[in-house]
Amino acid sequence: MDVSLVNPFIEAVVHVLSSMACTEAQAGKPYLKKDNVAKGDVTGIVGLTGEARGTISVSFTEECILSIVSNMFGEKMRELNEEVRDAVGEILNIVSGQARRKLEIAGRTLKGAIPTVITGKNHTITHITRETVIAVPFKTQYGEFTIEVCIEG
Amino acid sequence: MDVSLVNPFIEAVVHVLSSMACTEAQAGKPYLKKDNVAKGDVTGIVGLTGEARGTISVSFTEECILSIVSNMFGEKMRELNEEVRDAVGEILNIVSGQARRKLEIAGRTLKGAIPTVITGKNHTITHITRETVIAVPFKTQYGEFTIEVCIEG
Repeated sequence: MDVSLVNPFIEAVVHVLSSMACTEAQAGKPYLKKDNVAKGDVTGIVGLTGEARGTISVSFTEECILSIVSNMFGEKMRELNEEVRDAVGEILNIVSGQARRKLEIAGRTLKGAIPTVITGKNHTITHITRETVIAVPFKTQYGEFTIEVCIEG
Repeated sequence: MDVSLVNPFIEAVVHVLSSMACTEAQAGKPYLKKDNVAKGDVTGIVGLTGEARGTISVSFTEECILSIVSNMFGEKMRELNEEVRDAVGEILNIVSGQARRKLEIAGRTLKGAIPTVITGKNHTITHITRETVIAVPFKTQYGEFTIEVCIEG
């Protein structure tokens, strides 16, 4: 896939976490995902369709997402409950929306499906495609997370 | 959501497992999903967009999916490896395609995203929507699985 398609998602994640959760996320070097090892304990996924099929996922460590959602709500979150899952879905919705608006300006129109949130220690995430999947690791003051983007064609 | 929208997915799952994997799946009574407890060890998800946003997931027990994929391949599968994950993605692609064709004939045009497959004991799956999520439990000669369907609007 065209690596430049990942940039709008990187920018959207950084912007959303900064503005909604006072969390400064620094993107590391993007890499081609070759294995299926989970990069976190909580993953949000949004399917993409339109002129191409795709998918985006964001996987957080438990510590990282609890701190981020605590900042969003102004209240200490101690476990991966329904409020945290809903917040992950909301983050995904906004990231997907912001990134898709930038892609549309660049001539690529995609639609986003309902987000799905998975929780579970050591889960694996596999995007079923012959296209390459690009992963981008992030660091924050609260721990790490990874986004994965795949857009076919 | 309109419960009748679930029927094409039920029919597609029954048909695909019968024709591809010699597995007879019997649908139980559909119910509204109210909690987020995982119904299996392996889940395939496909996001839906078009005139409505949606998502479909199918969650298998490990025993059930290993038997199904063993039948598909004519070879005993003993662990949740890449081949099994790819097969789950392929099942989801075909189920999504068959169900969407029936929905299109009924006047509802939806597109399917890239499938994502999650493996992990005791993972939870949450579809982030204000719409109701309908779950349908299935029994087979190899164990159980559950499909969940949500289509907004």
